[in-house]
Amino acid sequence: MAHHQPEDLFSVNARGLKPSAIEAIHKLLEQPGMRSLAGAWPDPLVFQTDEIAAIIAELLDKQGDQALQYGSTRGQPVLRQALADMASTQLGFECSPQQILVTSGSAQGLDLACRLFIDPGDVVLVGLPSYFGATATIASHGGINVGIPLDEQGIRTDLMAEKILTLQKEGKRLKAAYVIPNFQNPSGVTMSARRRTELIDLAERFQFMIFEDDPYGELRFEGGHLAPLATLDTSGRVIHFHSTSKTFSPGMRVAWVAAQAPVIDRMERLKQASDISTNSLSQLVLLELIRSGRLQGGIERNRAHYRGKRDLMLGLMDQHFPKEVHWTRPSGGFFTFVTLPQDMNSDDLLIDALEQSIAYVSGPSFFVDGSGQNSFRLSFSQASVEDIEAAIPCLAGLIKKRL
Amino acid sequence: MAHHQPEDLFSVNARGLKPSAIEAIHKLLEQPGMRSLAGAWPDPLVFQTDEIAAIIAELLDKQGDQALQYGSTRGQPVLRQALADMASTQLGFECSPQQILVTSGSAQGLDLACRLFIDPGDVVLVGLPSYFGATATIASHGGINVGIPLDEQGIRTDLMAEKILTLQKEGKRLKAAYVIPNFQNPSGVTMSARRRTELIDLAERFQFMIFEDDPYGELRFEGGHLAPLATLDTSGRVIHFHSTSKTFSPGMRVAWVAAQAPVIDRMERLKQASDISTNSLSQLVLLELIRSGRLQGGIERNRAHYRGKRDLMLGLMDQHFPKEVHWTRPSGGFFTFVTLPQDMNSDDLLIDALEQSIAYVSGPSFFVDGSGQNSFRLSFSQASVEDIEAAIPCLAGLIKKRL
Repeated sequence: MAHHQPEDLFSVNARGLKPSAIEAIHKLLEQPGMRSLAGAWPDPLVFQTDEIAAIIAELLDKQGDQALQYGSTRGQPVLRQALADMASTQLGFECSPQQILVTSGSAQGLDLACRLFIDPGDVVLVGLPSYFGATATIASHGGINVGIPLDEQGIRTDLMAEKILTLQKEGKRLKAAYVIPNFQNPSGVTMSARRRTELIDLAERFQFMIFEDDPYGELRFEGGHLAPLATLDTSGRVIHFHSTSKTFSPGMRVAWVAAQAPVIDRMERLKQASDISTNSLSQLVLLELIRSGRLQGGIERNRAHYRGKRDLMLGLMDQHFPKEVHWTRPSGGFFTFVTLPQDMNSDDLLIDALEQSIAYVSGPSFFVDGSGQNSFRLSFSQASVEDIEAAIPCLAGLIKKRL
Repeated sequence: MAHHQPEDLFSVNARGLKPSAIEAIHKLLEQPGMRSLAGAWPDPLVFQTDEIAAIIAELLDKQGDQALQYGSTRGQPVLRQALADMASTQLGFECSPQQILVTSGSAQGLDLACRLFIDPGDVVLVGLPSYFGATATIASHGGINVGIPLDEQGIRTDLMAEKILTLQKEGKRLKAAYVIPNFQNPSGVTMSARRRTELIDLAERFQFMIFEDDPYGELRFEGGHLAPLATLDTSGRVIHFHSTSKTFSPGMRVAWVAAQAPVIDRMERLKQASDISTNSLSQLVLLELIRSGRLQGGIERNRAHYRGKRDLMLGLMDQHFPKEVHWTRPSGGFFTFVTLPQDMNSDDLLIDALEQSIAYVSGPSFFVDGSGQNSFRLSFSQASVEDIEAAIPCLAGLIKKRL
């Protein structure tokens, strides 16, 4: 019998795991003096730290037993009621508390949805570009990410039917489409109302699920709220993932998923097998922020804050970037996406930028087909005003040098 | 094309999911007036609520940006250092911070280990009886739980080699053994030093992993500390899961895993794909509890508290239970396990008990081979002194009636 190391016992899915782009970015951010436009964490300047501290002090005084104890897997019942009310009044889709599962970040919601729907070899349609955390989660379950191009209206639903028919001919099983309809990561693009309806129709025609990831939806700087896909869904095909990491706190790891009850029932069982329950204290803090109206107040301050940083970044780009370069104009969220001339490589440019202590995330991380070599993501969420003011003109100079 | 409901798109593993025994227990506990010996949650009476409140107030004042922000997937570096030090000084096994992964409860550690090692159809050896949360997690990944009987020395390593050879003949791939060496859930039994060595030898001989789950190890009421399997391991086969849910707070969802660095590296990638990072505030609170010595102080108070409740329960059982009934005498943890006469069914007895508003967990939930019909678990952790005093004599009467 051959001698096996632990590594020889790894599962098939685990063997295919690639190092995460997220960790590589964190390492960049840790370098002293780095002016990073790479990080997509929220800005601590807008954390409601004092309000959260006051809420926690009162919670531990009055409900300490509950805040420190296990809770039910589906989530604290009163919080699920509050989230269902908020979904209906603010997001425009009716759902009951039984259709809500509280998760440890919306990343966990997507992970559970993948466990529920994805067998190895199953296909998920994703944007070109798309958030690499999500495509990594899909791949970790053996799912195959198939890219569909984006334009300024969002994912190109007009190209989907043909792609799906090709996949069917190849004997591939399509299980879902993963989209971030609002201020997409990394493109900053918002899916138009028409595209949303078209995607719903395609899901119904070809019978696949829609994973609707909405971490940025509340951070709209201008223009009207567009109905979430979950609102347009009439046949229970949409699973809506709602983060609070960009409005409350990412470190507190609390988010929620809304879907039809049979889907939520199974996701609850998978969560039970996965981490038993979400942090109780975080749930009760979120509940109190919602009940007191302070979450909404915080969101409004967040909007103003990030709008200011977006305006600063886009203004400097308008002023300094050469005309050969194009970028998106997001009406919310954290990102603008830059397209360089066809023959300029964003990885090469990044080497120049890092020498000037400027970081961004190069395009290929976001393209599951390996394309995007002449593109990169700039984030205005985490960088300070000073960093944005220093980095953009410098980056413009580096681009011009390569033109 | 047939019309598919979302349910028709479920993955193979998800289709096999059974409703969780944990949720059924929670429903029992919620009934008003129930004297429950079923629940295995810690007793809120020993939560260090005031100390935690003071730590959080100071943390949010001085390190609010860090406490509310995302952290690295592997865990806060300073906490990992403190945990590595604690493993070495208190548990007796040397490990570096790179060998530690902070998880959202130790349940998540086991889940990630299953993702790393278990392909559908792979076998995991588990105790008869064994904690149903763990066997459910293994099954959720398509793993096959194969039961090995326990006795008062722990899992019967003397029966393992033959079982493994039979599995090999059947073409089954053995990947791991899952054990709770200290004050096992549900039996309360502690694995002897000799059995620990034998299990390590078997893992080396037959080349499988050992999942060492240690949620109760610090709650020893008497007798000496036994070396964890992780200490005896010389070939990197042990993954040690260490909860803080029974010593700090289950609601804060923070735990840690220790294993060889290549295993931890992969588990970190899987955690990245699963929930990105563990609650930052919880990690910083745990760190401060460790640094200030207050965690250790709390553990000592916990020991005295649960020892008192164990003594109360065992004393009442000695006094009231008929001689035909046997039970374990745990030297730590939360549980005693009761064996009724062969022909007395614990599910039938539970119906009588529930009529008297007394709840316990019936044996079959813990036996992956469907046996255990004449056994049940009693927990002294969560029930109040009054409930224990009222429930044990009443339960004894119900048993006598059925004799």
